[in-house]
Amino acid sequence: MTEQWLDEIKWDGNGLIPVIVAEASTAKILMFAWMNREALILTVDTGQAVYWSRSRAKLWHKGEQSGHIQYVKEIRLDCDADAILLVVEQQGGIACHTGRHSCFFRKLQDKQWRIIEPVIKDPSEIYHNSGH
Amino acid sequence: MTEQWLDEIKWDGNGLIPVIVAEASTAKILMFAWMNREALILTVDTGQAVYWSRSRAKLWHKGEQSGHIQYVKEIRLDCDADAILLVVEQQGGIACHTGRHSCFFRKLQDKQWRIIEPVIKDPSEIYHNSGH
Repeated sequence: MTEQWLDEIKWDGNGLIPVIVAEASTAKILMFAWMNREALILTVDTGQAVYWSRSRAKLWHKGEQSGHIQYVKEIRLDCDADAILLVVEQQGGIACHTGRHSCFFRKLQDKQWRIIEPVIKDPSEIYHNSGH
Repeated sequence: MTEQWLDEIKWDGNGLIPVIVAEASTAKILMFAWMNREALILTVDTGQAVYWSRSRAKLWHKGEQSGHIQYVKEIRLDCDADAILLVVEQQGGIACHTGRHSCFFRKLQDKQWRIIEPVIKDPSEIYHNSGH
């Protein structure tokens, strides 16, 4: 089975590629994550975002505990083939484990990181089990 | 001089942080790059995007050769403090060294990367000197 589209990607020294996750309907950046080869294959084949969790060192089917699945609309590759842009529809409108719409909820103002986005749902209500 | 906002960032093992670059006026993702501490300080202090070029192992003032300066509108940090979102206005409307608006000009279709964005300006007209 030829996998040329996978071989065209410049995986880093750990076999990973950074992934920017944008929301199709709002064009907002939801989060930033990493994929390995298997995660990208699963993402393409299932149409749902699957990442590589570096902290847990395992595949991470986004929404597996929270229900906040990401449905893939588009997959883009950059000029250097070392970054992916994933355009998704975000189930539940919450991408961040803090219960916010986007993970990028802190903005630099006067050299301080200020929180500028509200918590939509308390994480304790999202994650009934341990971890996220 | 206190630099708490810089110390709050989780720099990686190489002292870098990944940077997503989005366009303020269109909300499009323009490119993906990296910053070290010095690049981020320069970006904040000058209001123009300065990155760390991993391939050239030096600071890279975006637009220094092409004139395609990026004027910073907003700097965001994600929940894990290990990714930055830079919102910019792109001088010349061209972020990519291939002469395209965005670096993410390839889209996965039927397991092939297809170019779906046009070249706005020929790179040979952009870069009169070597490199970019």
